[in-house]
Amino acid sequence: MVNQPVLKDIQQAQTRIRSFIHRTPVLTCNTLDDMCGGRLFFKCENFQKAGAFKIRGACNAVFSLSDREAEKGVATHSSGNHAAALALAAGWRGIKAHVVMPENAPEVKAAAVRHYGADIVFCKPTLKAREETLAEVVKQTGAAIVHPYNDYRVIAGQGTAALELFEEIGNLDMVIAPVGGGGLISGTALAASGASPRTAVFAAEPEGADDAYRSLLAGRIIPSINPVTIADGLLTSLGDLTFPIIKNDVKEIVTVEETAIIKAMRTIWERMKIIVEPSAAVPLGALMSKRIDITGKRLGIILSGGNVDLTRLPWAD
Amino acid sequence: MVNQPVLKDIQQAQTRIRSFIHRTPVLTCNTLDDMCGGRLFFKCENFQKAGAFKIRGACNAVFSLSDREAEKGVATHSSGNHAAALALAAGWRGIKAHVVMPENAPEVKAAAVRHYGADIVFCKPTLKAREETLAEVVKQTGAAIVHPYNDYRVIAGQGTAALELFEEIGNLDMVIAPVGGGGLISGTALAASGASPRTAVFAAEPEGADDAYRSLLAGRIIPSINPVTIADGLLTSLGDLTFPIIKNDVKEIVTVEETAIIKAMRTIWERMKIIVEPSAAVPLGALMSKRIDITGKRLGIILSGGNVDLTRLPWAD
Repeated sequence: MVNQPVLKDIQQAQTRIRSFIHRTPVLTCNTLDDMCGGRLFFKCENFQKAGAFKIRGACNAVFSLSDREAEKGVATHSSGNHAAALALAAGWRGIKAHVVMPENAPEVKAAAVRHYGADIVFCKPTLKAREETLAEVVKQTGAAIVHPYNDYRVIAGQGTAALELFEEIGNLDMVIAPVGGGGLISGTALAASGASPRTAVFAAEPEGADDAYRSLLAGRIIPSINPVTIADGLLTSLGDLTFPIIKNDVKEIVTVEETAIIKAMRTIWERMKIIVEPSAAVPLGALMSKRIDITGKRLGIILSGGNVDLTRLPWAD
Repeated sequence: MVNQPVLKDIQQAQTRIRSFIHRTPVLTCNTLDDMCGGRLFFKCENFQKAGAFKIRGACNAVFSLSDREAEKGVATHSSGNHAAALALAAGWRGIKAHVVMPENAPEVKAAAVRHYGADIVFCKPTLKAREETLAEVVKQTGAAIVHPYNDYRVIAGQGTAALELFEEIGNLDMVIAPVGGGGLISGTALAASGASPRTAVFAAEPEGADDAYRSLLAGRIIPSINPVTIADGLLTSLGDLTFPIIKNDVKEIVTVEETAIIKAMRTIWERMKIIVEPSAAVPLGALMSKRIDITGKRLGIILSGGNVDLTRLPWAD
């Protein structure tokens, strides 16, 4: 896909991935509505295959390949949800996935990727080492690179979550998703433009990793340098494909303090009885800390994922 | 209600409480199916109002009262989910709830009951003190007692969870629920007898609180003496109304070790991304420890509740 995705591309992605992924439920919670002053609709990608929305983009990319492209497998560098998702999608297509991971990645993440049948290539924990190692893997295998977010096929795939939300819940005044590299928020914004143009799109970002916020202010991509946040899915910088979409189609990026992220995460667990990872709680953190006024509005929230280490909770005594 | 409930009573309860409670979703999980060898359908009462199935019975009892009975309020002794549920249901009807609680009950539980607007009367932490204090409250107020489980209105209400499950999921070979005092399992068994007679009913009980198991063996109610289990919703003994129903309509009671309960609870959190309390995990614990053979079967599981202290998880390091 060489052009920015439009609604038709997201719809095609939806058709392509439908039989592999879950159509996740949309949940509501009166207590949270009262807390925030609006009507909230939570799109539960924490219930998605491999525990996060990432499988949508990965699956769309993997099944967009021609047989000839696909036969040499796919490759990426990631230590998070994208790596597991790509491994899973590659397995569905019956092709190899090669995942480049920093050697200091938590064993639990490597185990998840291995569980889905991918080859892991470890490298030094620097961006340079990751890129060089990935280039080497591609040179040796001929695998097709599937970037975690800076890839139109991935962006179109991520947009299917919002598309399902708009299909199910009409008249949304706003939709909000977290922003890291920008794949999810770009897809969400493109889906809104095409399928629900009256819906204003907001992005929520940890204060400790506010490169997207600063990039929009500066009008150019400001890389994320030494970001510090519990929302470990949102550490990455915007890409040259995601940034223009965000610039055009996202109304506002709001930043959220760490304590507000943790409080929002705990509130979702306690009140909704569902498990979300810290990154998924950033949008509610923005609402609970009144960074956006949603009084009387109908708001969609993409709960991006639910992969969390249950032995290391941020509110442990 | 003076006779054992039949299907019609459960259906009437359903109509009576419908507009107050949630029709909870039924979730499935391929990973757990593979783990257990059957097809599992989880009825998610952890998503229910006040976080547990208890609101069904409490609401049915409260709205079964005549106006004259109701005007003096309702009373119970309980420190758990039933107390919160009764307080909530009484609030919906606009009447007082009086809850007798042992003075050593955790503050978090008292706070939940107070949050729903009930009066709390503390007493010494003995069964005798609870009963005497409750009698005193009733004498002073004229409130109607709503027992946590030994009450046909409560049993009929609890049966609506299984009734919804049978309405939504056909051809269940088995259904399983936890057993404490027996309100939920009695209601489930009566719903099955009436609405899905081919479905075999199983009860799951912690080994450390196996009074129902021993009562069935003995053919009479054996009280629970110093039960020790993490499943704090299942500490109570059977009542003279629940025991005969269990004896007639439950095929088997299986006991589950503490480690299996904790493992099942963690598995539900990790794989299904939903929060259940230990009591709710006992049935899956029975399946995961192969206490029941469900190979190739379709099995309904009632996830009884999701009220858990997030700062005290049983698998914390």
